Amino acid sequence: MNPDIRRERENATFSTELLTNILDGDQEKTRRRREIVSLVCSDPDFEHEDLNFLSRSERYEAAVKKSAQMILKMREYGVSDPEEIYCYKSSVHRGRSEPLDLHLGMFLPTLLNQATPEQQERFLMPAWNLEIIGTYAQTEIGHGTHLRGLETTATYDPATQEFVLNSPTVTSIKWWPGGLGKTANHAVVLAQLHTQGKCRGLHAFIVPIRSTSSHKPLPGVEVGDIGPKFGFDEVDNGYLKFANVRVPRGNMLMKYAQVEPDGTYQKAPSDKLTYGTMVFIRSMIVGDSARALSKASTIAIRYSAVRHQSELRPGEAEPQILDYQTQQQKLFPLLATAYAFQFVGQYMTQTYHRITGDINQGDYTELPELHALAAGLKAFTTWAANAGIEECRMACGGHGYSRCSSLPDIYVNFTPSCTYEGENTVMMLQTARYLVKSYRQARDGQQLRGVVSYLNEADRRLRTQPVSASAAPQLDADDLPGLVEAYKLRAASLVALAAKNLQAQLQKGKRQEDAWNSTAVDLVRASDAHCHYVVVKLFSSKLEEVQDSEVHSVLATLALLYALHGISQRSGDFLQAGLLSVSQLPRVSQKLKELLARVRPNAVALVDAFDYRDEMLNSVLGRYDGNVYENMFEWARKSPLNRTEVHESYYKYLKPLQAKL
Amino acid sequence: MNPDIRRERENATFSTELLTNILDGDQEKTRRRREIVSLVCSDPDFEHEDLNFLSRSERYEAAVKKSAQMILKMREYGVSDPEEIYCYKSSVHRGRSEPLDLHLGMFLPTLLNQATPEQQERFLMPAWNLEIIGTYAQTEIGHGTHLRGLETTATYDPATQEFVLNSPTVTSIKWWPGGLGKTANHAVVLAQLHTQGKCRGLHAFIVPIRSTSSHKPLPGVEVGDIGPKFGFDEVDNGYLKFANVRVPRGNMLMKYAQVEPDGTYQKAPSDKLTYGTMVFIRSMIVGDSARALSKASTIAIRYSAVRHQSELRPGEAEPQILDYQTQQQKLFPLLATAYAFQFVGQYMTQTYHRITGDINQGDYTELPELHALAAGLKAFTTWAANAGIEECRMACGGHGYSRCSSLPDIYVNFTPSCTYEGENTVMMLQTARYLVKSYRQARDGQQLRGVVSYLNEADRRLRTQPVSASAAPQLDADDLPGLVEAYKLRAASLVALAAKNLQAQLQKGKRQEDAWNSTAVDLVRASDAHCHYVVVKLFSSKLEEVQDSEVHSVLATLALLYALHGISQRSGDFLQAGLLSVSQLPRVSQKLKELLARVRPNAVALVDAFDYRDEMLNSVLGRYDGNVYENMFEWARKSPLNRTEVHESYYKYLKPLQAKL
Repeated sequence: MNPDIRRERENATFSTELLTNILDGDQEKTRRRREIVSLVCSDPDFEHEDLNFLSRSERYEAAVKKSAQMILKMREYGVSDPEEIYCYKSSVHRGRSEPLDLHLGMFLPTLLNQATPEQQERFLMPAWNLEIIGTYAQTEIGHGTHLRGLETTATYDPATQEFVLNSPTVTSIKWWPGGLGKTANHAVVLAQLHTQGKCRGLHAFIVPIRSTSSHKPLPGVEVGDIGPKFGFDEVDNGYLKFANVRVPRGNMLMKYAQVEPDGTYQKAPSDKLTYGTMVFIRSMIVGDSARALSKASTIAIRYSAVRHQSELRPGEAEPQILDYQTQQQKLFPLLATAYAFQFVGQYMTQTYHRITGDINQGDYTELPELHALAAGLKAFTTWAANAGIEECRMACGGHGYSRCSSLPDIYVNFTPSCTYEGENTVMMLQTARYLVKSYRQARDGQQLRGVVSYLNEADRRLRTQPVSASAAPQLDADDLPGLVEAYKLRAASLVALAAKNLQAQLQKGKRQEDAWNSTAVDLVRASDAHCHYVVVKLFSSKLEEVQDSEVHSVLATLALLYALHGISQRSGDFLQAGLLSVSQLPRVSQKLKELLARVRPNAVALVDAFDYRDEMLNSVLGRYDGNVYENMFEWARKSPLNRTEVHESYYKYLKPLQAKL
Repeated sequence: MNPDIRRERENATFSTELLTNILDGDQEKTRRRREIVSLVCSDPDFEHEDLNFLSRSERYEAAVKKSAQMILKMREYGVSDPEEIYCYKSSVHRGRSEPLDLHLGMFLPTLLNQATPEQQERFLMPAWNLEIIGTYAQTEIGHGTHLRGLETTATYDPATQEFVLNSPTVTSIKWWPGGLGKTANHAVVLAQLHTQGKCRGLHAFIVPIRSTSSHKPLPGVEVGDIGPKFGFDEVDNGYLKFANVRVPRGNMLMKYAQVEPDGTYQKAPSDKLTYGTMVFIRSMIVGDSARALSKASTIAIRYSAVRHQSELRPGEAEPQILDYQTQQQKLFPLLATAYAFQFVGQYMTQTYHRITGDINQGDYTELPELHALAAGLKAFTTWAANAGIEECRMACGGHGYSRCSSLPDIYVNFTPSCTYEGENTVMMLQTARYLVKSYRQARDGQQLRGVVSYLNEADRRLRTQPVSASAAPQLDADDLPGLVEAYKLRAASLVALAAKNLQAQLQKGKRQEDAWNSTAVDLVRASDAHCHYVVVKLFSSKLEEVQDSEVHSVLATLALLYALHGISQRSGDFLQAGLLSVSQLPRVSQKLKELLARVRPNAVALVDAFDYRDEMLNSVLGRYDGNVYENMFEWARKSPLNRTEVHESYYKYLKPLQAKL
C-alpha cells in the first residue's frame, strides 16, 4: 500500500467500520451487502475487459451478456428480496444502467399493477421467462414532461375488436425508452385512446414490436436505436413509429379503465397509485445522488492523498494535494454533501415504506407532502451531485479527464437523472406549488403539520420582523440546531416572498398561469431553500441516532461544514432574511476554514467508510491501495490504440504526405 | 424554415449583420472569415461521416487524414496569416484539437524561438515538410503544474558528446503530450540537465522517438497512447519513457543556455520570453471560452425557440420553451456571458499584440500586469464557460444528452481548458499574488497604474468606511457605470480582506508559505472578484464603441443583465462590502426579471449574430432552419447500431437465455 494513504488511515480518529454500518443501516446489512458484492466480483462469468476499451456495440453486447447471466444466477442463488436484487444487479453492472432495466423495472411492475388477472395470465409468465422482453414507451421525440401533449394514437375498431396504433406526426415518434432500440420485443405503449369518436386520454397498451421467433420488427413497426449519447453506452435507448399496427382489445391494460367490445369506455376510478410509483422512483434517485457523489469524492480524496504537487515551502518535498486549503475547499464540502444525501436517501426510503402502508389502507393523507418533497429533493440532490462530480473530476488535475479515473463515466451515467423522471426545474416548480398552497393555508389560519409546519409562522414573521441587518440575531457558527433554524427561517422567508410576488402579479390582473410564469424564478428559489432546509435538518437529526462518540464527532463536523458552507454560498439570502448580519460574515468564513482543517485528518477514512470495492469504483485514481501511477501506465499500455506499434493512418496519410511536401 | 424560428428572426429589433461585424472586428473580417469557412465546407476532401458514429481509432484516423489534406491545401491556397491559418484549421477540424496541434503550435515555434541558427538549419525544413513530426513533452505522469518537480534526466557524457535521457521513476514518465501516442517521430523533451556532476535545471532537447523510415519506436524509447479520455478522441495524447536514450550534444536547444563539448554549462540570460508565450496562450483560451459558450448558447436558444412543451394556459397550444421565465433565467445570463467573454477575448488579443511591440523593444513594464490578468481571466472564463455549456445542455431536456445535439462534444472538448496551460486554481492564486503585491505597494504609498489602480484606494476605503448596510449607497440597477463601480469596490474590498487575513496569519508567526496556504480560499475569492470586475468593465467599455443605436441598445441590455446577474449570485459580497443594502435586493431581482423579458424578443437574433454555420455547430438541435425532429430521426436511423435489424447479441445471449428459463 502507498505509504501516504496508509498513514492517512492510521491517523483517523474513528472506526470506519462503525460508520459503514450506519450508512448501510446496521452491521448485518453491511455483512450481507459485502457477501453479495463478493459473490458477483468473484464470479468469472462477470469478468470483462475494461468497458472504456470497447466500442458502443461491444459495450451493449457485454451488457446483454451480463444481464442474461444475472437473470440465471439470481434465480439459481434465490436472490429475490428487492434490496438484494438491487445490490446484485448494481454489482453486476457496476452501477450502470443496462438493456433489461425497463423490462425489470417498468414492464413487469406495470403488468403487475395495471393488468387484469386474465392479462397477467397471458403476459406475466412469458415476461418472467423473457420470451416477452418489454420496455415502457412513454416519451415522444417532441413531448416529454407534459403527458397530455403525447400524440401517439390507439383507435378502437369494434369491427375487429382491435386497437389501431399510429404515430401521426414526426413529433409523436416514441423516443428514449431503454431496451427499445434492439432488445425488447414488446412495449407498454402510452397512447391517446380514441373510441366511439372520442379521445379518452392516455392509456397503456401492450404492443408486440418484434417477432418472438426472428426478433425482426413486425409489420407497421419502425424501431431502432436513437444513436450515441453522452453516456449510457450499454443501453439501447430506442425509437418506435407505428403505421396502423393492430393489437387485440385485450392488449389494453384494463385493470382500471376499460374499453368494452362495442367500444364503450369505462373510466378508471382514480390515478393515485401512479402517484406512488413516481414518489418511489424519485426517492430512489435521491439515493443515486448520494452514491454517485460518494464514489466521485472517494476517488478525488484518495488521489489527493497520494498526489504530490508543487511546493508549499521552498526546498521541501512536494506536499500531498490534500494539504492545500483550496483543494480542501473543493472536496470537503462535497464529502459533507455526500454524507448529507446518504442520510436524506435513507430517510426518503424509510418514509416511503412507512407511507406505503398507509396508502395500501387507503390513507393518502401524507402522500401530497411526500410527493412534493420527493420532487424537490430529486432536483436538489441531483443538481448538487451533478456539479459535485465534475468538481471532483477537475480536482484530480489532468488525470481526472482520463477514462481510467472513472470520473467521466460516473458523470455521464449520473447526469441524465437531472432530466429523467421529472425535469429538475419542473420538479422544483411542483414543490413550489405545494409550498405556496401550504403558505396560503397557513395565512388563512389553517394549522399546517409535517415538514411545512414552519410556514405557520412565515407570514407573521415577515410582517412583524422587517428585514433589517441590525435586528439580526447572533448566529452561532458552532451551533448546528441554530443553523438548522436559520435554514428554516430562510426557507420561510423565501416562500413568503415568492407567494407575495405571485400575489402582486395576480393583483395586476394577470391570469393565474401568467402570474405563475412571471414568478417562476422566485418559486424555484423558494423550493431550493425548502429542500436545503430539509437536508440540513435531516443531517442534524441523524446525528442524534449516532451513539459512538468518535463517529458522532466526525459526522458533527461534516454537518456543520455542510450547513455553514451553504450559508456562505447563499449569504445574500440569509442577510436578506435578517438571519445574519454583515459583521458576522468574516466569522463564517473563518469557521469554515477551521472546519476544513478539522476534516483533513479523517478525509480518507470518511471515504473509506463508503466502502466501495475497487471493482465497483473501477478507478485507477481511486484505488484503495493508492498505487496510482504504475497502474495507470499498465492501463494505458493495454488500451486499443497500442495494439499495433504503428497506426494504419501512418501508412495511409502521413507517409504519402511526407512524399508530397 | 421552421415558422417559430422565422418569426423570432422577423421580430428582432436590430441587424444581426452589424453585430457579427462587431464580433469579427469589422465588415471585411467577417467577409474573409466566411470566405475561408466556405472554402473548407464546400471542399469534398473534408467531408466525413458523423464522428459520433466512429470508433476512437477511426476518429483519430479521420483527423490525421484531414490534417494531411489541410497542410497541403493551406500551402496550395497560400493561407499563411496566423489568424487565417487559425480560421482554416478550426474550420477543417470544426474547433476540435487534432494530432498535429503540437507539431504546429509548439514544436515549430519552439524551434524558431529556442534553436540556434545551426539547429534551425538541421531541423526546421524537415519539420516544415513533416519528415520530422514533433510534439512537446513536458508534463509527467506524476508532475504537472510544478515544473521544478519534473524528473526526466538528460545527463551529458563528454566522452561521446551525447546527452543520455532517462525516466528514472514511474512518476517521471512523460504523459499527455498531444500527437505523442502515435503521430510524432520527434519530441521536444523537457528534462533536468546534469553535467559535470551538477543538476542545472530544466532544459529542452530534441529527441527522435520513432524511426523516420518505419515509424517504429527507437531503441530505449517506450511510447504509446495514454488511452481513452472524456473527449479529445482525435488526439493521441501519449506517454514516453526513456531508458538510456542518447542524442548528440547538438540536440539540446542552445539559443540561450549552452553545454560546451567538455560539459561546461553556460546559463541563459533571462526567461522572460517564455513568459510571453504563456500570456499569449492564456489569452487565446479566453477566446476559446467565448466561442465554446457562444456555440452552446446558440444551440440551446435556437432549440428553445422551436421546442414546445407543457402548457402555460390550459387548453392553449404548448408554448415555446423560450417563453418560460425559468428557461430565460438559465439561458440569457449565459448568452450575456458569451458576449462578455467575446469582448474580453478581443481585448486580450489586442492588448497582447500591443504589448508584444514593447516587449520586442525590451520594455517589459506592462508584462507582469498582463501576465496576472491572463492567468486570472483564463481561469475565470473557462470555469464560467465550462459550467455554462452544461447548463445549456441540460436546458435542452433529454435531447441535450444525445450526441446529435453536439453539446456533449462541445463540453468534453472544452473542459480540459480548466486544467491545461495552468490549472485554474493555481492561476487564480497567481493573480492573487499580483493583487496582494499591488495592494501592499499602494498601502505603502506607491501610486498604482493600470487595471489594479483601484487598489490605490482599497485600503483607505476599508478603513474609513466601515461595512454597514445603512451606509450603503443607492445602487441604481439601470446604471451600468454605477454597477461597474460597485464591482470595482467589491474587488478592492476582497483584495484588502485577503491581504489582511494573510497579514494576520503572518503576525501569528506562521511562515510565509503556510500563511499563504491558510488564506488561499480568500485569495482565490479576491482574484475572482478582480476578474469579474474586469469583465464587467470591458463589456461596458465595448458599448462606447458601438455606434448603431439598435445594436447598442440590445448589447446594453445584455451588459446590464450580466452585471446584475453577477450581483444577485454574489449578493453577500456586495452586501458585505457595503455596496448594496438588503432593502435593495428585491429591486435587483425584479430588474433581472424585466431584463430577461427584454432580451426575449432578440434572443435568437443574438445567437444568429455569432454566425456559426450548421457545419460548424454540427448540432441537430441548433440547426439554423429549426427543423429539429425530422433531422434527429434521420440521424438516428443512420447510427451504427441500426446497420443490422437484429443485433448479434440477440443470437448469442438472449435467445439462448429464453431457452434456459
